[in-house]
Amino acid sequence: MKIQKFSVSDASFERSPDQDHHVFVANLVDEREGGPITVSYGLWPPNHDLRPTRVVHDVMIVLEGRLTVTSIGGAATAGPGEIVYVPKDQPVEIHAHERGALTAAVTNPHWKRA
Amino acid sequence: MKIQKFSVSDASFERSPDQDHHVFVANLVDEREGGPITVSYGLWPPNHDLRPTRVVHDVMIVLEGRLTVTSIGGAATAGPGEIVYVPKDQPVEIHAHERGALTAAVTNPHWKRA
Repeated sequence: MKIQKFSVSDASFERSPDQDHHVFVANLVDEREGGPITVSYGLWPPNHDLRPTRVVHDVMIVLEGRLTVTSIGGAATAGPGEIVYVPKDQPVEIHAHERGALTAAVTNPHWKRA
Repeated sequence: MKIQKFSVSDASFERSPDQDHHVFVANLVDEREGGPITVSYGLWPPNHDLRPTRVVHDVMIVLEGRLTVTSIGGAATAGPGEIVYVPKDQPVEIHAHERGALTAAVTNPHWKRA
C-alpha cells in the first residue's frame, strides 16, 4: 500500500445506504485497504436531519457549511475547520443547517462492508 | 462518553515530541477517551520538512495551506479540503509549502501515549 490523496472533485458519491434521506457519501478508504478505518466525504443537504445507526467511533471534520449533532448529553454545532467526535454507541441526530454541509469523516471500525 | 466538538481557537498546541522541528500538534481525542483513534490538529510552518517516525495509519485532512507527502511510491500534494491517507509503516516525508498548513489528523492506533 502507498499514500493516497483524495479531493471532492474526484470522489464518487452515492446515496447513504439504509436511510430514507438524501445524504451522499463517498468512501475513500475502506476495509479493502487492510486498515481498521474508513475515510469518506459526506454531502449533507440543507435543513435535513439524519439519525445514523452506526455503531462506530465517528470523527467528522466540517469542510463547508454547518452541522449540529445532538445526543442525550447535549448538542454541538460545528462549522468549517471544526471537528465533532461521536463515540461509539452514542445515539445522535445530525442536522445540516440552511446551506447544507460538506464533511470529511473517519470511522473506526468500518461503518459498512466494502 | 458523549459527543465533543473542537475548534482550532480552543485547542492547546504543543511542539511535536521527538523531533527537532517546529510542528505544533494539539491532541483532541486520545487513548484517554477509550477509543482506538487519536484526533489532532497540526500546525505546519512554511517550507519545513518532517520525517515522522509514526507507525500508525494516518489520515490528514488539509484545512489551510498546502502539504506534499512523499514516499517511496510517489508524492501527493494536498490543499484545503483534500485528504492524504498514509498507511501504517509507510516511511514518508511531509513538506509544508510556502504558507505552511493547518491539518486535522486521525491516527489508528494512537500515535503517542497520553
